[in-house]
Amino acid sequence: MDLITVKEIFRNRDKYFDQKVTIGGWVRSVRASKAFGFIVVADGSYFDTIQVVYHDTMENFTEISKLNVGAAIIVKGTLVATPDAKQPFEIQADEVAVEGPSASDYPLQKKRHTLEYLRTITHLRPRTNTFQAVFRVRSLAAYAIHKFFQEHGFVYVNTPLITGSDAEGAGEMFQVTTLDLNNVPKTEDGAVDFSQDFFNKKVSLTVSGQLNGETYAMAFRNIYTFGPTFRAENSNTTRHAAEFWMIEPEMAFADLQDDMEVAEAMLKYVINYVLENAPEEMNFFNSFIDKGLLDRLNNVVSNEFGRITYTEAVKLLEEHNDEFDYKVYWGCDLQTEHERYLTEKIFGKPVFVTDYPKEIKAFYMKLNPDGKTVAAVDCLVPGIGEIIGGSQREDDYEKLKARMDELGMKEEQYDFYMDLRKYGSARHAGFGLGFERAVMYLTGMGNIRDVIPFPRTVNNCEL
Amino acid sequence: MDLITVKEIFRNRDKYFDQKVTIGGWVRSVRASKAFGFIVVADGSYFDTIQVVYHDTMENFTEISKLNVGAAIIVKGTLVATPDAKQPFEIQADEVAVEGPSASDYPLQKKRHTLEYLRTITHLRPRTNTFQAVFRVRSLAAYAIHKFFQEHGFVYVNTPLITGSDAEGAGEMFQVTTLDLNNVPKTEDGAVDFSQDFFNKKVSLTVSGQLNGETYAMAFRNIYTFGPTFRAENSNTTRHAAEFWMIEPEMAFADLQDDMEVAEAMLKYVINYVLENAPEEMNFFNSFIDKGLLDRLNNVVSNEFGRITYTEAVKLLEEHNDEFDYKVYWGCDLQTEHERYLTEKIFGKPVFVTDYPKEIKAFYMKLNPDGKTVAAVDCLVPGIGEIIGGSQREDDYEKLKARMDELGMKEEQYDFYMDLRKYGSARHAGFGLGFERAVMYLTGMGNIRDVIPFPRTVNNCEL
Repeated sequence: MDLITVKEIFRNRDKYFDQKVTIGGWVRSVRASKAFGFIVVADGSYFDTIQVVYHDTMENFTEISKLNVGAAIIVKGTLVATPDAKQPFEIQADEVAVEGPSASDYPLQKKRHTLEYLRTITHLRPRTNTFQAVFRVRSLAAYAIHKFFQEHGFVYVNTPLITGSDAEGAGEMFQVTTLDLNNVPKTEDGAVDFSQDFFNKKVSLTVSGQLNGETYAMAFRNIYTFGPTFRAENSNTTRHAAEFWMIEPEMAFADLQDDMEVAEAMLKYVINYVLENAPEEMNFFNSFIDKGLLDRLNNVVSNEFGRITYTEAVKLLEEHNDEFDYKVYWGCDLQTEHERYLTEKIFGKPVFVTDYPKEIKAFYMKLNPDGKTVAAVDCLVPGIGEIIGGSQREDDYEKLKARMDELGMKEEQYDFYMDLRKYGSARHAGFGLGFERAVMYLTGMGNIRDVIPFPRTVNNCEL
Repeated sequence: MDLITVKEIFRNRDKYFDQKVTIGGWVRSVRASKAFGFIVVADGSYFDTIQVVYHDTMENFTEISKLNVGAAIIVKGTLVATPDAKQPFEIQADEVAVEGPSASDYPLQKKRHTLEYLRTITHLRPRTNTFQAVFRVRSLAAYAIHKFFQEHGFVYVNTPLITGSDAEGAGEMFQVTTLDLNNVPKTEDGAVDFSQDFFNKKVSLTVSGQLNGETYAMAFRNIYTFGPTFRAENSNTTRHAAEFWMIEPEMAFADLQDDMEVAEAMLKYVINYVLENAPEEMNFFNSFIDKGLLDRLNNVVSNEFGRITYTEAVKLLEEHNDEFDYKVYWGCDLQTEHERYLTEKIFGKPVFVTDYPKEIKAFYMKLNPDGKTVAAVDCLVPGIGEIIGGSQREDDYEKLKARMDELGMKEEQYDFYMDLRKYGSARHAGFGLGFERAVMYLTGMGNIRDVIPFPRTVNNCEL
């Protein structure tokens, strides 16, 4: 079909004034009088809508006037500038063809709906202003991430979703099986007989692609993953989903400083890309969802991120222990209240906190010369606290083995990972960015359920 | 670390001649004589390697000379043009620091390894020429797909992986659960008690994001998905994997003609992008993996794709029934031998076959006026046959309902899908491209296990 998008009209309006245009879209509202009427149409290509004027000279004038919100129409007409009106232009229609009417029980009438209600109709909510904005920004942010890494020569690696190992020895996992749960086959000694399962062993959904990603960094130097990850955690909060997307870059011949540089550059790039490519959406969020949003994002892109060690940060925070629910002490895991205090009150801008006690971080992080801390880094941003977590990885075979022994890990599961330290080990570092957290940060949306098209949370797997 | 990539040196060599450069990479080979030696280094940023010359004036001359294949080194030196040598330039090293040696049992010695053997070391195979080329092309192809759709205003949608419904009423699915398989809870009447499972119901891994994608097309007009999909099919072939990535664009206000136009433009775009951005890799494939590759790809990008209906195609093929294992007749599903005959022998270029009998296609495809065929399309390409399958979707509520009744489908599972036909239905179309099939086509690799970093197939889920 030879249709023009509303976006194209808005972006290159001068080209189309007094020209014939044909658009296809969905009715947001109809106001009909006796001789003519106005239809506000959205076609999903652009945040703003376009106004269509139609007249009773049309055969189907009555049909059009009775259209319900949500109906699909195809409009042929002339684009006319309307310098004295609220909207910059409108289409004077020659023809309005009804592509598909909308039944009278259409759930999205022209009124404000709560986000909670809209969560019950995930198949229709992308038609609302808020979710048009959210999911267009989500799409742009995803593309900006690919663009950033590709332009910097990173190789995109699809690490596996179904996995036989538990990436961090932590995190509750979903099991994947083709066994008949009504009648699980058992071995002679009564255990589940996984030899009859599809993969001939027990498998789960991945919680991180990092360890696989490292194998590719040791071949391509700079790689990134961007794919779904899963957590079977029974936490019904506004920030946890059972299925979410993660970005995990990994760089060989890179240390913690390099890691922070890439993380900072990436965050700034993505924010700038979205601000430039979705100005209407970002203004909408700033006006209706989160008043301080644009200031906060501009603060991030225009400041050099602060850097502080965990030990120094703890010293500074201890001075304010009376303001915290959880008291800070060396060795504690920083809570969101502490992270936000650091980045909002003490630094007033994003800050990298480095060199955490090894006890509160993962086994693969590089032991510092002090023997107590590891080369870990969390990036804290005003408004939410931690947005990125990363580390330089332990690249010394013996030290890694010692740490795994300490933690009682099953080494045979990690042969491939140890091989990377045996054959051409190189210092390397990486980080993880939860994509939904990033989209929440970009949009000001407060609930992770509202930045995922079809969210999966405990007891909830609709559509 | 302030390192330069081998790619940067190759691409902008003039800038670096007689300049100091520092690279980090892995040893491909060492040839040492008494007073000096040569190291061939790959850093993973580029298909070609770089030669390093070192001398016995270095303190660690002996250490370097004994380096095994796979060792990681950091080289500081001067880039020198070598117009009379095989390679265009080399690095005259001032310093070669050993970042990490490689143990003597390194599995990738300087010799040819079979693809079968390399499949047993998926964590190391990306260090070989073949897999360097495969996975760099895979990354570029993925990016090209995003770039194509984003530049055409499509919104990227992450459809869910865990799903409560079976997208096509077909396809064997993996079940996802947190129930204890050793002790599956049962209800009073002996059925599995899914109320105790994480999602409070039976859920599986998706086989397609299309139905979810359609809900977003009816909001954003043009959308695409690009994510993992799963099949629990017990088929141990060179073309089936249990976990693979799919691209599924969906367009509202679009018919089958529009669908074909987008599919053709996308395929050509991706091929051109890879040819332009990975010429070394593509020449490698053409020389060592598949001699006709470049001719075949150039044929695709430079020809307008043919178009033929299934009915016409069957007539043409029936004339050659003596050449086929499976005889062709109207109503039969076309086999790969038929598809290849059509595209290779009859058309000599890619061809779209349209309007298949409804019995051999999915329930959601739009019924044609003849009442017998549906607005389906398969895109066939020389060398493999079908690479893309798509259709215009049935957008008429009553016709869709009738077809679902005919097939005995559970309508209550599809309420959301029927809603799209009730509230502003618009003609729409889409297609699916199996990403691994596309990478196989781009590289000439013959086994899907060799284009997936960590392949999952029946009885195989390593790393």
